[in-house]
Amino acid sequence: MESMATTKINIQNIGGDQRYVGTNEGGDHLLIDASEDLSLGMRPMEALLTSLGACSALDVAAILEKRRTPVEEYRVEIEGDRADEHPRRYTRIKVRHVVSGAGIDEKQLDRAVSLSHEKYCSVHATLNADIEYEAVLVS
Amino acid sequence: MESMATTKINIQNIGGDQRYVGTNEGGDHLLIDASEDLSLGMRPMEALLTSLGACSALDVAAILEKRRTPVEEYRVEIEGDRADEHPRRYTRIKVRHVVSGAGIDEKQLDRAVSLSHEKYCSVHATLNADIEYEAVLVS
Repeated sequence: MESMATTKINIQNIGGDQRYVGTNEGGDHLLIDASEDLSLGMRPMEALLTSLGACSALDVAAILEKRRTPVEEYRVEIEGDRADEHPRRYTRIKVRHVVSGAGIDEKQLDRAVSLSHEKYCSVHATLNADIEYEAVLVS
Repeated sequence: MESMATTKINIQNIGGDQRYVGTNEGGDHLLIDASEDLSLGMRPMEALLTSLGACSALDVAAILEKRRTPVEEYRVEIEGDRADEHPRRYTRIKVRHVVSGAGIDEKQLDRAVSLSHEKYCSVHATLNADIEYEAVLVS
């Protein structure tokens, strides 16, 4: 019984030992580095927060689209608090969804954001940090 | 007592509701999208795997550098199995470190890879998936 989906990524060191490029099966790239001198990509722990915020925003936008109140602007402000001790994991992450769109009301937006974080967001569900979230409707 | 470090990321929707760009405090960007038509960046769950692989590779390269046996090539092959049910989290992730470098021996590499995964890698420690890892020394 083979039912689970597998996601494959290859990561290659490029141009120095602190810069890596990931490639997915479709050939899309993601640059990650830890260089102090010439930083081009994000640090790994920053990329992790970006994955979480984008994952949830994609859910919320899809839910609101289905309800025929598509989003106009979407911004996510995200903060992660890291433990002092190695391995310096994120202990708490705060995600703030700032959304505008004609016809979206606050209740609907709150509900969509909750649905994403509690039910749909795969990145959220793969993290062991305490994740707090809020939704802000702007015009 | 303020001792925890906080990492901040802003994520902005650009050019359609399925494309997001994250920006860190230093101005570095990371593009994430879910577009079927024109995919430029990775999907969020792919970016998550890339964060993990790069995080651990950075650790291992730093450890081997300190031991005066720097890496020459570094590649990480990573696979994540996702649950069928929502929220489709990663249940198991396999990380394969493929490394070359003059003077690196297998035991040393194994030890560095274990140290990263068990002690230092912040991304690993923030994930709740079962993570398996192996090290392969190539010439």
